[in-house]
Amino acid sequence: MDILELKPLAAQLFNDIRALSFDGVGVTRGSYGAGETAAADYLREFALREGIEAGTDRAANLVFHLPEADRDAPAAWVGSHLDSVPQGGNYDGLAGIVAGILCLVGQKRSGRPSNVPLKVIGFRGEESAWFGKAYMGSGAALGKLSADDLALRHRQSGQTLAACMEAAGADIEAVRAQTVLFDKSKVRAYLELHIEQGPVMVARGLPLAVVPGIRGNVRHNRIACIGEAGHSGAVPRWLRKDAMFAVAELITRLDEHWRVLLERGIDLVVTTGMVSTSPEEHSVSRIPGTVNFSFEARSKSVDTLEGFYQLMRAECKAICRDRGVCFEFDRRMDSAPATMDSQLSGLLAEKCRLQGTPFELVPSGAGHDASLFANAGIPTGMLFIRNENGSHNPGEAMDLDDFMLGTGVLEQAIGSL
Amino acid sequence: MDILELKPLAAQLFNDIRALSFDGVGVTRGSYGAGETAAADYLREFALREGIEAGTDRAANLVFHLPEADRDAPAAWVGSHLDSVPQGGNYDGLAGIVAGILCLVGQKRSGRPSNVPLKVIGFRGEESAWFGKAYMGSGAALGKLSADDLALRHRQSGQTLAACMEAAGADIEAVRAQTVLFDKSKVRAYLELHIEQGPVMVARGLPLAVVPGIRGNVRHNRIACIGEAGHSGAVPRWLRKDAMFAVAELITRLDEHWRVLLERGIDLVVTTGMVSTSPEEHSVSRIPGTVNFSFEARSKSVDTLEGFYQLMRAECKAICRDRGVCFEFDRRMDSAPATMDSQLSGLLAEKCRLQGTPFELVPSGAGHDASLFANAGIPTGMLFIRNENGSHNPGEAMDLDDFMLGTGVLEQAIGSL
Repeated sequence: MDILELKPLAAQLFNDIRALSFDGVGVTRGSYGAGETAAADYLREFALREGIEAGTDRAANLVFHLPEADRDAPAAWVGSHLDSVPQGGNYDGLAGIVAGILCLVGQKRSGRPSNVPLKVIGFRGEESAWFGKAYMGSGAALGKLSADDLALRHRQSGQTLAACMEAAGADIEAVRAQTVLFDKSKVRAYLELHIEQGPVMVARGLPLAVVPGIRGNVRHNRIACIGEAGHSGAVPRWLRKDAMFAVAELITRLDEHWRVLLERGIDLVVTTGMVSTSPEEHSVSRIPGTVNFSFEARSKSVDTLEGFYQLMRAECKAICRDRGVCFEFDRRMDSAPATMDSQLSGLLAEKCRLQGTPFELVPSGAGHDASLFANAGIPTGMLFIRNENGSHNPGEAMDLDDFMLGTGVLEQAIGSL
Repeated sequence: MDILELKPLAAQLFNDIRALSFDGVGVTRGSYGAGETAAADYLREFALREGIEAGTDRAANLVFHLPEADRDAPAAWVGSHLDSVPQGGNYDGLAGIVAGILCLVGQKRSGRPSNVPLKVIGFRGEESAWFGKAYMGSGAALGKLSADDLALRHRQSGQTLAACMEAAGADIEAVRAQTVLFDKSKVRAYLELHIEQGPVMVARGLPLAVVPGIRGNVRHNRIACIGEAGHSGAVPRWLRKDAMFAVAELITRLDEHWRVLLERGIDLVVTTGMVSTSPEEHSVSRIPGTVNFSFEARSKSVDTLEGFYQLMRAECKAICRDRGVCFEFDRRMDSAPATMDSQLSGLLAEKCRLQGTPFELVPSGAGHDASLFANAGIPTGMLFIRNENGSHNPGEAMDLDDFMLGTGVLEQAIGSL
């Protein structure tokens, strides 16, 4: 059968899961939360109806495969994540899982399984929006979650990551011991299909792109700038320790450094996604005594990440001297940049060419579960689908025809492994 | 009797009212809220026990006077406000009412009322922290609250100012019609005693200060900077419309202008007391699409206020062009600067000298109910009490001996009117 015939099924899966996790604005499938679980249950039931086996690994991730597949043979793994950010879009993560499941459905319905058995993995907990930590499901599978990570708390409920993972069915003691739960000896390749989260492919008119590498990042979820609160009318400028003016100056200095580094051709993005004076005590006429903010830098280069991080710390010190404030940092979080396997990238490119679909090599600015597989020494490849309006927002708009082209490339690549 | 003998009574009044409005951190006496009402009820009961009449005016402010006083004679009014900011200090506002009541107690207990009858007014609703508008109680009494003001909503309950004032007993139709409820023909002077809200008097070793003038201000409670949300890793710098970087640049530019204006000797303070990315959608890895912030400039000069306001608007326009964001402004709020009556200031200064208390002229950076009386053409005088750690915070620390010195000056000044 032609995989393109499964387009109506793809539409149904996307629509049903959107409806299950619609929050009135976008979709909310919180990591180890209700929306994510509803999506997981839906996909499991769907797979079983199709005669596909569906279970979970010891890290509570979903795993799908044909019942007749050789369980001991090295497999082609296709995966992505089930969760979304709050008020997010429907395709970020879900598209990769649906693509893998469609490949399994194609093999099952046609009675022609691939030579290298296909396994599809749906990770729980990829988005950092919920616990301040990304790649929790794939990290747990690969033995990369630390005790510090497991002690992180949910942004709303305050429950620990450990408690939420355990409630979702994870073997939390094995995760805590950093046991490698994913058998690296039985994997031929890890492939991930994902929507592009930026504007490059739309601008260049590319339905598909092969991802040669993934940016890493360095983060603080929460830096506190601590100055001195006071009445806005009664404290002159030279006696102020205004935490907001200090943070504004820091951001402006970082922006200036960023601009200069870009002019030198260095790969970098810098973001302060969360900034806030204290809601319990702030007012129009109060000099902010404390401002909390997040910091993130992303780059393909580990050296750039480290250099920019140290620059940020140096600017904080300079601002402390100038403005009488101090900065308190929570735990530094690092995600290493990753390079995709050149043979797998070549295979994906070849299948795009055979299919006649325009594509280019487009590096990923966003992080993906694939980077953990690549950095674990597993041959990893990644395919981007064109997507309008970015991701992490309800406006994300992937064309279903583009998605089916990507699923076709994925199917053909698996068949040629 | 010597008014200084009332120090234990002053301590008792402050302690009892602090206990009534303690919130676990500081005191919370919200405008037209529970803490303010509890303080009002306490003072009313105290006054009645002392044989002092206690009622309310048509704007729901507390009014105290001796029952034997001539109701038709022009009075010496002494006032300040009952309310506090959230988690505020005990003395900001309350000190002025207690000082006035102590003067009444002194007159009552000694049987020697002042020649010009003393009336003490405890305003409800002075702090802008609750409805985004200051001087509600004194403004209502002087016919200065507009329909727009009355439609403002409480920061927590969302109830309108009109509803809250009416529940507190105000004649809301008269207030809405901007009726002047305070009879200006029957006032000899308005005097206000208030803690200093800045560090000047502590630094100069002055227990008391005479206030020659009060800064005005121009404000927006909420300006929205609207850019475009996006995935932090996937949108390069030149395609970003980062609302937080835009607001940071605006604040940094305003700070630079402020520094330059100060070097030219211009009186100005600038504050962005509330700044926040959107809690419903912000995350470490999301480019902020919207940032809300407040703006306030204060100066003794109307021209400086207007000039700096226009400069702020011009910088917003420039940043819109540079960064592809836009700014949306809520209603502009203005409070006019005020000049105190020179004869009353001279009288207060003379009484400080007679008492042998070190004092200087210290202008008020913060606004006060007194500025509305001065701008309504009523002879107005103001006395500051030394206070450590500023105000609008639980750390404010007025020495009771300083307070009694101020109360003594107030008593003597009233006696000489």
